[in-house]
Amino acid sequence: MTGGVTTPQGFRAAGVGVGIKRPRPDGTAAPDLALIVSDVPASAAAVFTTNKAQAAPVLVSREHLAKSGGVARGVIVNSGCANACTGDEGMVNARDMASETARLLGCHGDQVLVASTGVIGVGLPMDKIKSGLPRAFAALGPDQGPAAARAIMTTDPFPKEAAARVMIDGREVVIGGMAKGSGMIEPMMATMLGFVTTDAAVPQPLLARALRAAVDTTFNAITVDGECSTNDTVMLLANGRSGASVSESSYETFLNGLTAVCRELALGIVRGGEGATKLVTVKVTGAASDADARIAAKAIANSLLVKTAIHGGDPNWGRLIAVAGRAGVAFDLNRALVTIGSIVLFEHGKPHDECAPDAAAYLQGKDLTVSVDLGAGRAAATVWTCDLSAEYVRINADYRT
Amino acid sequence: MTGGVTTPQGFRAAGVGVGIKRPRPDGTAAPDLALIVSDVPASAAAVFTTNKAQAAPVLVSREHLAKSGGVARGVIVNSGCANACTGDEGMVNARDMASETARLLGCHGDQVLVASTGVIGVGLPMDKIKSGLPRAFAALGPDQGPAAARAIMTTDPFPKEAAARVMIDGREVVIGGMAKGSGMIEPMMATMLGFVTTDAAVPQPLLARALRAAVDTTFNAITVDGECSTNDTVMLLANGRSGASVSESSYETFLNGLTAVCRELALGIVRGGEGATKLVTVKVTGAASDADARIAAKAIANSLLVKTAIHGGDPNWGRLIAVAGRAGVAFDLNRALVTIGSIVLFEHGKPHDECAPDAAAYLQGKDLTVSVDLGAGRAAATVWTCDLSAEYVRINADYRT
Repeated sequence: MTGGVTTPQGFRAAGVGVGIKRPRPDGTAAPDLALIVSDVPASAAAVFTTNKAQAAPVLVSREHLAKSGGVARGVIVNSGCANACTGDEGMVNARDMASETARLLGCHGDQVLVASTGVIGVGLPMDKIKSGLPRAFAALGPDQGPAAARAIMTTDPFPKEAAARVMIDGREVVIGGMAKGSGMIEPMMATMLGFVTTDAAVPQPLLARALRAAVDTTFNAITVDGECSTNDTVMLLANGRSGASVSESSYETFLNGLTAVCRELALGIVRGGEGATKLVTVKVTGAASDADARIAAKAIANSLLVKTAIHGGDPNWGRLIAVAGRAGVAFDLNRALVTIGSIVLFEHGKPHDECAPDAAAYLQGKDLTVSVDLGAGRAAATVWTCDLSAEYVRINADYRT
Repeated sequence: MTGGVTTPQGFRAAGVGVGIKRPRPDGTAAPDLALIVSDVPASAAAVFTTNKAQAAPVLVSREHLAKSGGVARGVIVNSGCANACTGDEGMVNARDMASETARLLGCHGDQVLVASTGVIGVGLPMDKIKSGLPRAFAALGPDQGPAAARAIMTTDPFPKEAAARVMIDGREVVIGGMAKGSGMIEPMMATMLGFVTTDAAVPQPLLARALRAAVDTTFNAITVDGECSTNDTVMLLANGRSGASVSESSYETFLNGLTAVCRELALGIVRGGEGATKLVTVKVTGAASDADARIAAKAIANSLLVKTAIHGGDPNWGRLIAVAGRAGVAFDLNRALVTIGSIVLFEHGKPHDECAPDAAAYLQGKDLTVSVDLGAGRAAATVWTCDLSAEYVRINADYRT
């Protein structure tokens, strides 16, 4: 189903421009402040970047989740500035951003989570945020999910929203989400932010478990450029307004819905990857272990030579074999298999070059699958990536200029 | 000193075009077959790719070194075709290439080493090689090192040659080398070939030890695109014609000369990296261990965001911190230090943005150093890389078209 963070019952959102980003060419403020509010306290869970250089909002949100026991009323997010590598002042600012939101919301400061995205090492313009917050509150509405999704964008070419409906205990439960991210995207929660809401009631430990499981096969299985940022965060709020409660017996049903939302958001990030023109599903089979499968799939998905070959529509299976061979996992050249789409290009240690024209034609598409069987076992993994274009270089060579 | 593989006494080389590569625009054959011959049997050592998909010439050269006990008379190299992923036929062709060379040289087949570079998965045109070999032998000369260096190039923008002179036992010893490589270059001996000759006499075990040590801090410390190929090879031949013998007591002197030659060749590969416009020295200090230092330096050197920022002349120290933080090594944000050139841009957890304009000016240069202190110990490592330009994408999206 279509929808976003305000599709589940009892959630309102807003997205406004307060001047953190540069004004748009026409002089108007670009949207850069988003708010998600639950009408009632929601149980909350989050996963954060594994980067050792953690941004202030990551540290503060982690602290708030711990202090509140996993309860949240709202989330405040800004784009245009990551508030990362900003020292003690950055911590003060992240806490102020949360407490000012809590004051307007009428809840305890610990019940507000905070996230930032944008350039690293620049301080937050707190005057603009504080003067803009009342405007964000005034704009709050149950139909403002799309505005919030736009306000968290940085280099994203389009907003990412998704929703799913599942039946739990005979009641309809809705899960909705939004995400941002385009570059510095890698398995370990790069410069991406994701916010998912649901109107199910979910005990906090179950909520946290479901989020970890869903993120592992979705946000953690995508890569745009192999980078992992200082701010990556995915948050999940469950407010119970549907009247349905998730328990162990309905956990799988809820997880499936949650995973569907996360997958759609994650694939949106890849489709909108910096300079991306193609979405590429990388399947690795025949691995000796799940870990090997994942390592090989990520090595292929991050390979500049694979990504540029796909960009150029070149069915260069040799690069796939070369990456599989260097990935540091069990690999048997004589039993390996390379498939582009459904076209087998290499098997039994030898090429099928007669199929190259068909594979080249297939690579003209926008939604592609490349598969490598390592010939070493039975484990498998899937990872999503995009092609690498000259536009990626242009975007990242000029990011701050 | 200037020079190449024929600068040491008793070595001759040749480089001719036999039609493996496409003809040049003017219709003449591009040089694609190189020969290095020692007047007398030389002790020989080599290091090969760690890729599990090993090309036929790698397997055959390894076999010949084992069978001959580390003695070689000659090396035959072709460019334009990697003879990799070519099955049994590829093995037969690599052996034929060596045995035909041995026949013309009048030595045992095991005393010829073989190397190939170029596109993966295409069979060698043996008729062209066999009919061209006599021409290569006719062209052999003690001044043909430059011709050989040109004949091993693929996407290289220029040939790489180097030489060094050291005094051993009061005698002058010369070490000369050539290398090729531009893309698919990473620490683990990527699509690069290196050939080094010396007129010292070096016992084979000492020769092998010196080569491993020299390669570790030179060829294995460069990266263009994080890729590791199926064919990477560095070979070292020592023929003793200078009359000097290397022993344990003169090992360090020899190693220093050998390392100087390997470093110059390795840096040549980076300078001529596909699409490269800048040579970047990445220094990591303050690491908890040598391994951590190397891992962090390679993570920085392979980061697309670092490489594109440098390409754009953007002193984006935040990207350096973000990569150090995700590299999986001990890292302390509050003790970390980022230096571009000699300009400190981040220390004590805070930016020195007032220095950004100076750093931006420094980044206009062509030979740059970026340094990150991890704040976690005393170990250090140096790695060399190049910037990432739109030209890299163009080269690799169009490689086979």
